[in-house]
Amino acid sequence: MHCKKRIRDYGVKIGRLEAGKNNSITDVAGVTVGHATIDDQEWKTGVTAIMPHQGNTFQEKLIASSYVLNGFGKTVGTVQLNELGTLETPILLTNTLSVGAATEGLTKYIVEHNKAIGRTTGTVNPVVGECNDMLINHIRESAVTSEHVYEAINKASATFEEGAIGAGRGMVCYGLKGGIGTSSRLIDLTHGTYTIGVLVLANFGQMEDLNVSGTPVGHSIHDHLSHSPNEPDRGSIMIIVATDLPVTDRQLNRLIKRTSTGLARTGSTIAHGSGDIAIGFSTATKIPHEKPIEPISIPSIHEEDLNPAFRAVGEATEEAILNALVTAETTTMRDGRVAMSLIEAMGRYGLTFEE
Amino acid sequence: MHCKKRIRDYGVKIGRLEAGKNNSITDVAGVTVGHATIDDQEWKTGVTAIMPHQGNTFQEKLIASSYVLNGFGKTVGTVQLNELGTLETPILLTNTLSVGAATEGLTKYIVEHNKAIGRTTGTVNPVVGECNDMLINHIRESAVTSEHVYEAINKASATFEEGAIGAGRGMVCYGLKGGIGTSSRLIDLTHGTYTIGVLVLANFGQMEDLNVSGTPVGHSIHDHLSHSPNEPDRGSIMIIVATDLPVTDRQLNRLIKRTSTGLARTGSTIAHGSGDIAIGFSTATKIPHEKPIEPISIPSIHEEDLNPAFRAVGEATEEAILNALVTAETTTMRDGRVAMSLIEAMGRYGLTFEE
Amino acid sequence: MHCKKRIRDYGVKIGRLEAGKNNSITDVAGVTVGHATIDDQEWKTGVTAIMPHQGNTFQEKLIASSYVLNGFGKTVGTVQLNELGTLETPILLTNTLSVGAATEGLTKYIVEHNKAIGRTTGTVNPVVGECNDMLINHIRESAVTSEHVYEAINKASATFEEGAIGAGRGMVCYGLKGGIGTSSRLIDLTHGTYTIGVLVLANFGQMEDLNVSGTPVGHSIHDHLSHSPNEPDRGSIMIIVATDLPVTDRQLNRLIKRTSTGLARTGSTIAHGSGDIAIGFSTATKIPHEKPIEPISIPSIHEEDLNPAFRAVGEATEEAILNALVTAETTTMRDGRVAMSLIEAMGRYGLTFEE
Amino acid sequence: MHCKKRIRDYGVKIGRLEAGKNNSITDVAGVTVGHATIDDQEWKTGVTAIMPHQGNTFQEKLIASSYVLNGFGKTVGTVQLNELGTLETPILLTNTLSVGAATEGLTKYIVEHNKAIGRTTGTVNPVVGECNDMLINHIRESAVTSEHVYEAINKASATFEEGAIGAGRGMVCYGLKGGIGTSSRLIDLTHGTYTIGVLVLANFGQMEDLNVSGTPVGHSIHDHLSHSPNEPDRGSIMIIVATDLPVTDRQLNRLIKRTSTGLARTGSTIAHGSGDIAIGFSTATKIPHEKPIEPISIPSIHEEDLNPAFRAVGEATEEAILNALVTAETTTMRDGRVAMSLIEAMGRYGLTFEE
Repeated sequence: MHCKKRIRDYGVKIGRLEAGKNNSITDVAGVTVGHATIDDQEWKTGVTAIMPHQGNTFQEKLIASSYVLNGFGKTVGTVQLNELGTLETPILLTNTLSVGAATEGLTKYIVEHNKAIGRTTGTVNPVVGECNDMLINHIRESAVTSEHVYEAINKASATFEEGAIGAGRGMVCYGLKGGIGTSSRLIDLTHGTYTIGVLVLANFGQMEDLNVSGTPVGHSIHDHLSHSPNEPDRGSIMIIVATDLPVTDRQLNRLIKRTSTGLARTGSTIAHGSGDIAIGFSTATKIPHEKPIEPISIPSIHEEDLNPAFRAVGEATEEAILNALVTAETTTMRDGRVAMSLIEAMGRYGLTFEE
Repeated sequence: MHCKKRIRDYGVKIGRLEAGKNNSITDVAGVTVGHATIDDQEWKTGVTAIMPHQGNTFQEKLIASSYVLNGFGKTVGTVQLNELGTLETPILLTNTLSVGAATEGLTKYIVEHNKAIGRTTGTVNPVVGECNDMLINHIRESAVTSEHVYEAINKASATFEEGAIGAGRGMVCYGLKGGIGTSSRLIDLTHGTYTIGVLVLANFGQMEDLNVSGTPVGHSIHDHLSHSPNEPDRGSIMIIVATDLPVTDRQLNRLIKRTSTGLARTGSTIAHGSGDIAIGFSTATKIPHEKPIEPISIPSIHEEDLNPAFRAVGEATEEAILNALVTAETTTMRDGRVAMSLIEAMGRYGLTFEE
Repeated sequence: MHCKKRIRDYGVKIGRLEAGKNNSITDVAGVTVGHATIDDQEWKTGVTAIMPHQGNTFQEKLIASSYVLNGFGKTVGTVQLNELGTLETPILLTNTLSVGAATEGLTKYIVEHNKAIGRTTGTVNPVVGECNDMLINHIRESAVTSEHVYEAINKASATFEEGAIGAGRGMVCYGLKGGIGTSSRLIDLTHGTYTIGVLVLANFGQMEDLNVSGTPVGHSIHDHLSHSPNEPDRGSIMIIVATDLPVTDRQLNRLIKRTSTGLARTGSTIAHGSGDIAIGFSTATKIPHEKPIEPISIPSIHEEDLNPAFRAVGEATEEAILNALVTAETTTMRDGRVAMSLIEAMGRYGLTFEE
Repeated sequence: MHCKKRIRDYGVKIGRLEAGKNNSITDVAGVTVGHATIDDQEWKTGVTAIMPHQGNTFQEKLIASSYVLNGFGKTVGTVQLNELGTLETPILLTNTLSVGAATEGLTKYIVEHNKAIGRTTGTVNPVVGECNDMLINHIRESAVTSEHVYEAINKASATFEEGAIGAGRGMVCYGLKGGIGTSSRLIDLTHGTYTIGVLVLANFGQMEDLNVSGTPVGHSIHDHLSHSPNEPDRGSIMIIVATDLPVTDRQLNRLIKRTSTGLARTGSTIAHGSGDIAIGFSTATKIPHEKPIEPISIPSIHEEDLNPAFRAVGEATEEAILNALVTAETTTMRDGRVAMSLIEAMGRYGLTFEE
């Protein structure tokens, strides 16, 4: 994992807080991530699965919330997630037109592992997010099947690759090659140290806007190009936030709303044509599917303790986006142009991350 | 169409307002409805398609809104529908675990009919609602495929059947056989007469609560039963509202929120285990997919003119639910018990709609 | 208290569940209610205070939520209440144009009782609801002052009067005299018996729509009148829900959303011109203002246990509205017409609550 | 007006778009702003009034929307503003504990100018926002009265002062002196050139986070200080957005949601203890109070045209905050410490806006 150089390996430091051990969403104990990548002549796309814990998520749900930064997106599962404040499946990411196939695959997976569903208990709420990879991938014919869903889930691990992989295979970000990135932060409260991890599927932005820790890198690259890649921004970002912080779903919603600060600092204007959606969960409390005799006790931090968490989620989102950019490899687009990797572009034009 | 007797054929009058010509959602000009029904030894389920107008919905979108009465549901497409205030596909209804398959089929259908999607324009936002038909249908293995989606769309017509058909095949409502029902109302404003049509997929409620225009019919039936069918209410209702009223999406949202009044008057407590979701659209304005040179002009009624529309949507929702109940035929459930039709139950116990 | 006859004293039974000891919001232990009534030649208005517990609400906040049934209203304090999920002041009800004065009075009261506010700690979020009593009261000149706020708070008691009193003095409901009403329900869960109490300020509806437990009483009264009082419905209802049920603010929001079922069953169409707003709180958990060292533990019921609570809040809302109607006395309106009491109207036309 | 040097007078350029003529919210034709400042031994506070147009706002309402970035705030009037999508009064800004007094004053003002209110028509929905100025102002005793409301309204003009004036008198931002700032941007669409203006009441942030166009100015100042002013962030920001862009209230909501990008770029983490609230209105369409015979026609841009507007609102928000900081004068706080002006602080430590 992470044998690729990441943004801090280039000397760029984002924010004030310390990262977790692997600077990854999987620093939150129990969280794993897996990819299934489709990469052939026709299709460059895939599925990424985020496993919220290592048990049966349907039987032991996690407190969760979603927040729509911009709703030009087709994410599935947020209605129930917000009504009940719980997540009961892995979270899948894929391309926009494969949401149906991924939903079908995830439903099948959960039904297989829970014999009571549709018999003695109700149904399940699959959660699937997406970005549009049509610049690189032949999106009109869905290449994604249930097999890819199973593959991504089965490959899930605490170590996983970033960049143009899984759902990230065909993504374009700030006119450069985008994809999957991750980062984490630690916060110290009076009652313990907690981890906030972020994983992004980055597929948004105009090149000229890209800002790396205050340096207008995108503007500099753009100046060197003969043609302007400042096309209408039709991209999106999915932001998955995991934490072991004891929070209610309302507190979690406040937390994931702050992903906007990190997103904005990389240069995003949160354009109209994007599905910018954050989904968060906390591993601190397991909510049983079956009704217990006594009330459940939900430990929750004092609201003031959200302040360091707000800072953490902004920093981790910013760094996760930059990690996606520096780990994704140059890829040829459907129309023959290339989505350059950020590092290659900077190398070509002799740019560094310091002004 | 409607050769079956409907609630007003039994002398029951709901509300003060006059119904449209067919007392149907298709009284709104341009709206059609089609069913694909799966009915064999294993499966009793299906797909119902509501076509919002007769042109290309992706090219000419309609102002739309969704409202979550209770979000224990898996409806797809509401994130974008609410962000942009438009509907760009037919609305499908099906069973809960077939949402993925129906989404896939609907995506395929729209992509086929719009060559620019995924090439020169962005993607499409399919809208699929659902209720859980597990009491009657073997829901664990999805019987629904893209073919059923196409069938329902292709069969769409201004005349269509109510009751245990299409997505309504396996539904149970107030412990009786539920399914598809429809109704409409006319309202007179200073600038014209407008139609508000409602279609429901009714799959909710405890028998004891069923109230028909003030008469506690459910309570009476329940009293005659040796065993209590007052099981935990895990059902749902999908409510589709169509209108030709010139409204903004905010006004439409206010309008569809009033479906709760009709729902409540039939006896619902809007139970926890239900996905009670309303989706509405107006045919008055077509929003072009391609950006025009000039601003679009959206005609919209004065807020005070919403008052008769609020009344209309409550009345039509109430009557649509009752129509579903009186048109659905007795069906054997998976466990061998029967979901009786309301009319059969009343006949058996000598009950009438008048106290 | 309650020496006036209430709706169940007339033989009308609402719903299936048992009421609390006094069939009042104050059946929830710790909740008290007080009125300040202004009743002279010019003004017929007032303030009603609901005290959520008997300690210092700013220091020990309660989990709370608000839900907007229809937002044509000027309620103050819901932004923070929903962000933080807590209530930190008494709830005041008054007339629409006195919201500013009541807010000022309540702020003053809280600041006086909490020396740290504005010095070493932040500020306070007063919660004030309102209905428009302009048919009876000379609302343009606010008669309400801080003194009335203090009076209502100081008079708060577990026993309090219903009808045309406090904020209810000038209200009109279903074309009849409206005002303050209350009711409660008990629910039995595996871990205890809980109370759900509702207090309404009822000021909405068209006479023809009034329905008392299935009997169209309003229609019957309306038929006897020579002139039609079916004026445009510009009224409102404030619904305060108290409970000792251990719930999170999300669960509480789901609960108070069900006030719509009781409201609809009395005949409301939730008209455009109304501020129909529900505010709920739970006394089960006290959230400390000062940050404790350890996380707070929030006991919360399983979601399925909300089902009886949903039923309870619907029944109590319906009965509270009817209690307001049967306890309010006939009052002359500003234009010389009278807002008759429901009981007087029924007596005059020989009507009973049974069909 | 603006005889004070503003951020661009220091050579700092924010974003890509051109500003309007005065780089002010009043570049939107018809918008004016006025201040009433209270500045004596006890109190340093005030009222700022934003007049949305020069006619009778109650009779001719504007399409409007509010968006809660963080809801730890006491803003009044957003319930109705969001339900009806219109603004019918001037917008007032003041200190947190004077919201009641300002609401009373604004109500009085509107009632005086509209004889039908409370007689033949309904009531009015005053809109009042606030920030907490307790570090500088003796906030516990409200110094604000109706007179200050009238004064601010009567002084409203297309030219107005920025900095420590009006509601901005007692504000602290990034540990420096905050207050009122404004900025604007022009956008060119196929159908015309439009203006987006922003006014902020800036009272938030930790010094160390302040970032001026990529330069970590706050960090540098903080390094020079012997004591750390990184106190818990209890501040807030009110952001008023005006535009002449023809938009629906939904589009306006999308627009004002993007204020977060400008806010984040100055360094904000949108801390827990803040009421960060955006209120926007468009002057393009006047919505009549009285119901017209025909539907109203609302011109509205295609959603894709929102992209430049999103960029504009982010840039103008960022620049407005910086304008507040560079125009506000050093002020002594209640505890004797000083809230330095940004310019004075930079001068003292030899800092410039270029790295």
